[in-house]
Amino acid sequence: MRPTDYKNPDPPETEGICPFCYGNESETPAEIFSIRNPGTKKDKPGWKTRVFRNKFPALTGSPIDNKTNSPDHGIIIPGFGKHEVIVENPKHDADFPDMSVEDIESVLDTYLHRLNEYGKDSSYKYILIFRNFGYYAGATFSHPHSQLIATPLLPSTIEVEQQAAKEYYQQTVRCWFCDSINGDLNDSNRIIYCHGNIIAYSPFAPRLPYEFNITSGNHSPVFNQLKKEDMNSLAIVLKHSITKLKDLFPDISYNCLLHTMPESSLEQDREKSAYNHWHLEILPRLVKTAGFEIGAGFSINPTLPEQAAEMLRTG
Amino acid sequence: MRPTDYKNPDPPETEGICPFCYGNESETPAEIFSIRNPGTKKDKPGWKTRVFRNKFPALTGSPIDNKTNSPDHGIIIPGFGKHEVIVENPKHDADFPDMSVEDIESVLDTYLHRLNEYGKDSSYKYILIFRNFGYYAGATFSHPHSQLIATPLLPSTIEVEQQAAKEYYQQTVRCWFCDSINGDLNDSNRIIYCHGNIIAYSPFAPRLPYEFNITSGNHSPVFNQLKKEDMNSLAIVLKHSITKLKDLFPDISYNCLLHTMPESSLEQDREKSAYNHWHLEILPRLVKTAGFEIGAGFSINPTLPEQAAEMLRTG
Repeated sequence: MRPTDYKNPDPPETEGICPFCYGNESETPAEIFSIRNPGTKKDKPGWKTRVFRNKFPALTGSPIDNKTNSPDHGIIIPGFGKHEVIVENPKHDADFPDMSVEDIESVLDTYLHRLNEYGKDSSYKYILIFRNFGYYAGATFSHPHSQLIATPLLPSTIEVEQQAAKEYYQQTVRCWFCDSINGDLNDSNRIIYCHGNIIAYSPFAPRLPYEFNITSGNHSPVFNQLKKEDMNSLAIVLKHSITKLKDLFPDISYNCLLHTMPESSLEQDREKSAYNHWHLEILPRLVKTAGFEIGAGFSINPTLPEQAAEMLRTG
Repeated sequence: MRPTDYKNPDPPETEGICPFCYGNESETPAEIFSIRNPGTKKDKPGWKTRVFRNKFPALTGSPIDNKTNSPDHGIIIPGFGKHEVIVENPKHDADFPDMSVEDIESVLDTYLHRLNEYGKDSSYKYILIFRNFGYYAGATFSHPHSQLIATPLLPSTIEVEQQAAKEYYQQTVRCWFCDSINGDLNDSNRIIYCHGNIIAYSPFAPRLPYEFNITSGNHSPVFNQLKKEDMNSLAIVLKHSITKLKDLFPDISYNCLLHTMPESSLEQDREKSAYNHWHLEILPRLVKTAGFEIGAGFSINPTLPEQAAEMLRTG
């Protein structure tokens, strides 16, 4: 991109047709997957969730189509991978608080399906499902959607997390995530909401103000293995906690990140099931990233997690 | 901070008096250091650069005032350190392109003085000097200024950089930064501008579009040891390259980060002088950080460094 291609800031689309709305399916790449009302057709209205290739993919192609430029030769590797868009709901302005629990379950079922699609192929070292909601979270379309990027390398953030969880496990023979949930969470009042096995809580040292996690209260290595009833609980907790967040901050932008290792990775190393514990991170974008954060990799969080949890609990 | 304390986005100040302008010195904490016109008095007009404690410091206090809560006990450590504001010029809207080379040399001399102030005290593991210019880079005051944060821990970004440079040195007995400057930089047309020993160039794999580095072309471990003539060249290169950047992007926000290890660290381990090479990173904020960047720690840069360098070279 040349200088004229960058607009600072680029305003979100405010007019024109939304390619993610019913009737505009031809404006997107072809449908790869959808959850649909019975009797409706591919690339036509009637879907509940709809998945297609990102028109401007960050990664593309196949791991085997570039043998002369393999990861073993030098520091440049082919940018192969997958980049998909998951439209979450037909309603143009439906965030989780506006959806029914059943609608949110369809979104989660779609995540599960896409993770199963790529998670067994060891060419993909990680499958990141994320959600940019709102302008300050980097959303370029206002119609709520998630994205999936399957990468040929383990992301550096996940590598650090895996390494830390592994070391903790080797020292204690316990799961760090379980210990952190069963630890001082109750005493310190960092629990936001629970339903069934699913818990929303402020982490011990959140990077961002009002950041919170959602996960299983019992040991649960990967998202794909969640039971039907846990999926229902997760949808309930997600709807409840995001509703509370938006009660506090009506115009909030936020990111959601699903942390879960691909099944192929766990199959290669069975010990990983002992120290992996899927979780969803919700990152409200209330503060800007400036020189100190970029330069040091440290975060300054002006709100204590106990206070954030109290506000998110009571509203 | 409670929800009502966050405004999204918080607008930069647009009215009222600027505490960084001449005559408003009493609005800031007391002056710690300044470069001044002869005969002018502390905390009065007449300064060229002026340094004071940040009114809302990220870190504060003394490393020895909290013996019962030392870094060895658990995972919480006292937030001791220094946080200073360096006002760069009396002129309210003077960015580097608007300053004389002599003015910029005063800014660099001020950096040098503050690094010398804390660099010999091994309580401070790092002294980060950074500059947030413009709203999207996190500047909360529009009067251009730099900041200094001295930290009780080595920042994680610097730790990674140090480790990589050390490993490269141990394998090759060469400085990675020297090799990268003497390598394919010329062939690949990534040089932006040179003056004397100082060079501005697009790095091999920039995280951000139009990101560039400024450093010494010859091996130069720390900023504090730059000669007078190199300081003059650095001021010339800084003025030239930021002028070019703002010719391309008149409303640009950007961060500057000075990478240089404290002298105490180099004295503890002489080998560090062999693989350390000070550099200044200039990070234009043209794109937003969204779920993929936060979740993976990977960057998507839509502009090739060779093209960015060409644009910054020719304007």
